[in-house]
Amino acid sequence: MVMSNEHIYLDSAASTPVADEVIAEMLPFMKQQYGNPSSIHRFGRETTRAIQLARKRVAGLVGASPREITFTSGGTEADNLALKGAMMQTGGQKKNRIITSSIEHDAILEPCKDLERMGIQVTYLPVTGEGLVRPSDFKDIISQHDDVALVSIMYANNEVGTVQPIKELADIVHRASALFHTDAVQATGKVPINVKSLGVDMMSMSSHKINGPKGVGALYVRSGLNIMPIIHGGGQEMSLRSGTENVPGIVGFGKACELAAKRMSEYQQHVAGLRDYLVELVLQEIPHSRLNGSRIDRIPNNAHFTFFGVNGEDLIIKLDENGVAASTGSACSVKKQKPSHVLKAMRFSYEEITGSLRLSLGMHNTKEEIDRTVLALSSVVQELRELSPFKSKYAS
Amino acid sequence: MVMSNEHIYLDSAASTPVADEVIAEMLPFMKQQYGNPSSIHRFGRETTRAIQLARKRVAGLVGASPREITFTSGGTEADNLALKGAMMQTGGQKKNRIITSSIEHDAILEPCKDLERMGIQVTYLPVTGEGLVRPSDFKDIISQHDDVALVSIMYANNEVGTVQPIKELADIVHRASALFHTDAVQATGKVPINVKSLGVDMMSMSSHKINGPKGVGALYVRSGLNIMPIIHGGGQEMSLRSGTENVPGIVGFGKACELAAKRMSEYQQHVAGLRDYLVELVLQEIPHSRLNGSRIDRIPNNAHFTFFGVNGEDLIIKLDENGVAASTGSACSVKKQKPSHVLKAMRFSYEEITGSLRLSLGMHNTKEEIDRTVLALSSVVQELRELSPFKSKYAS
Repeated sequence: MVMSNEHIYLDSAASTPVADEVIAEMLPFMKQQYGNPSSIHRFGRETTRAIQLARKRVAGLVGASPREITFTSGGTEADNLALKGAMMQTGGQKKNRIITSSIEHDAILEPCKDLERMGIQVTYLPVTGEGLVRPSDFKDIISQHDDVALVSIMYANNEVGTVQPIKELADIVHRASALFHTDAVQATGKVPINVKSLGVDMMSMSSHKINGPKGVGALYVRSGLNIMPIIHGGGQEMSLRSGTENVPGIVGFGKACELAAKRMSEYQQHVAGLRDYLVELVLQEIPHSRLNGSRIDRIPNNAHFTFFGVNGEDLIIKLDENGVAASTGSACSVKKQKPSHVLKAMRFSYEEITGSLRLSLGMHNTKEEIDRTVLALSSVVQELRELSPFKSKYAS
Repeated sequence: MVMSNEHIYLDSAASTPVADEVIAEMLPFMKQQYGNPSSIHRFGRETTRAIQLARKRVAGLVGASPREITFTSGGTEADNLALKGAMMQTGGQKKNRIITSSIEHDAILEPCKDLERMGIQVTYLPVTGEGLVRPSDFKDIISQHDDVALVSIMYANNEVGTVQPIKELADIVHRASALFHTDAVQATGKVPINVKSLGVDMMSMSSHKINGPKGVGALYVRSGLNIMPIIHGGGQEMSLRSGTENVPGIVGFGKACELAAKRMSEYQQHVAGLRDYLVELVLQEIPHSRLNGSRIDRIPNNAHFTFFGVNGEDLIIKLDENGVAASTGSACSVKKQKPSHVLKAMRFSYEEITGSLRLSLGMHNTKEEIDRTVLALSSVVQELRELSPFKSKYAS
């Protein structure tokens, strides 16, 4: 096997390496402190304490109180729990509608489809060409319905990185007496988030996007709000999420949150700095290229381009051969080979969608890697354009 | 903190230490091979291959084919997926009933309650004083209903260790044209299991009960059987379980299954040998003590006693002070302080339930630990009986 670390990894929006400090805190909970937290003996008490500390750390990163944090197996489960748990709680009552955006992750859109099969109404909001939900549009749409129970709008989009005006949207939702959930999987730990000042009722988080382990995430549920569990059993997580706790995973997630809080400004400086350098270099070096999404309302680690006259999937394969790991967009949807619903909602043409590429950065990336990436990208784009039927239009 | 490994750990039915070989295989998937399996670049392909190998290993342990294995976040989620997934698939049709036993784990009983709220009928089977579902009783009950969609009966009970006649029960279920699920969380890796010769349609497994990591499990779903997902999103696990795969967890679970398959006879010899020695010594050294459950149909690692005139929770606390980690029964229900529904279903008296203690063994235990345990147990039982209002009845 080729050593992974020779490769330049520019797919941190899909997943990230687990930080050494995180692994160091996890290991004792596999080898020595392996008790089931539900056990009342010493081994159980050790792991119970470890989970308490992790809960405090996760809560601390987003300004929540520890009891408002429910650990899940990841962001997808957190999204499912938020949507289904809230709608089942209000089930049978008059309010029977979810409003969400048309650019959500499948972890929101697919549970919505499932709820639609169960009789819940779902309204999908349009977005601007930059991927923004306009508060004025939203206000219009929510005012047309008196049956809105829940609104779910992602904090930052996983493909184009656009950050939504969450506080403003949450205010509108609360004036309409509905609940507001945000999928903050791509934003948590990357931008300062305070659930209280944002005014969100529920928020989904994931560990493996911020140098924590895979297989763990959390749902913030505002104190006083009751939702129904979707996994039933031994009553762990205050009965909201049953199943023996993934202790090493939870411990690792807690540590990753502590690290993220500590290094937030360093992260923003390093990663947004490299990202801006990358964007500048790409637009300068590669003709017929364009940055997508908002220049201003954008998470620090995301760069999303269209290279006209090129197929994004060919681009990824060629970049991979040249030692650069990139993505067309959502890792989850790439294998399905369907055009991005996000870019479609942003009204991109077929050509704009086809030529799209996401480069997402992390703490491990260096300026030298960016230079090498742009060199590789430049030559690969040119090579593919030479082979393209539109050669005359774009080849330099 | 007191070093855990000075303690004698006799709660392997609650959780187990992760084997060194398992940790060794997991670590590279945190530090170097951290790609999202949905990514098409090298990092993604590495983790996709790792999951394929793990799936093969889990399947191999139970005689399934790899495509019949769906990874979940643990045994509880696997149980929820089996029950809800199967009932939602048949939903709206005539068959609207689940039959289960009255001694199932909460991971079965609680989803059943949830399904009851949704209009599903649930019948709870009685058991014998040893915790056995009698096939003749079962045949009678199933013949009384023509609406049975699904039967779920655990392979081995988590409290008393009784193993059910799964093959015989599955035959009866299939003659009634229903589906058969078994929660094999306590049995997998401890007794030889072949899903094909057993004839089960679905089977739940857990990693952390067999020296694998917490936070991962699997559901076997017989090829050709379609069930509905309970967590929706990116379509991982052939759309049956969405969410970025817990790659290190899955890799660890796969390795744990491989180890369990390799060392099955060694495990049985070592663990059942120590367990038999423990049972003999306890019954010989401690008056007014009794072994519960079946002597014959029992998983190798379980010993479950009643010590008359003693409160089991006091016993656990005192044993813990004396360096022995034990349990009254299900780790999950201990903190709820409700009397065991398993022992109630076995028609134990209040006194028999109160005085119960589970000692569950693992590969790490030694004969010397058993000797020390029985010494501690003997003196603690005597001490507690001295303080008991029933002192005259039981104190030696």
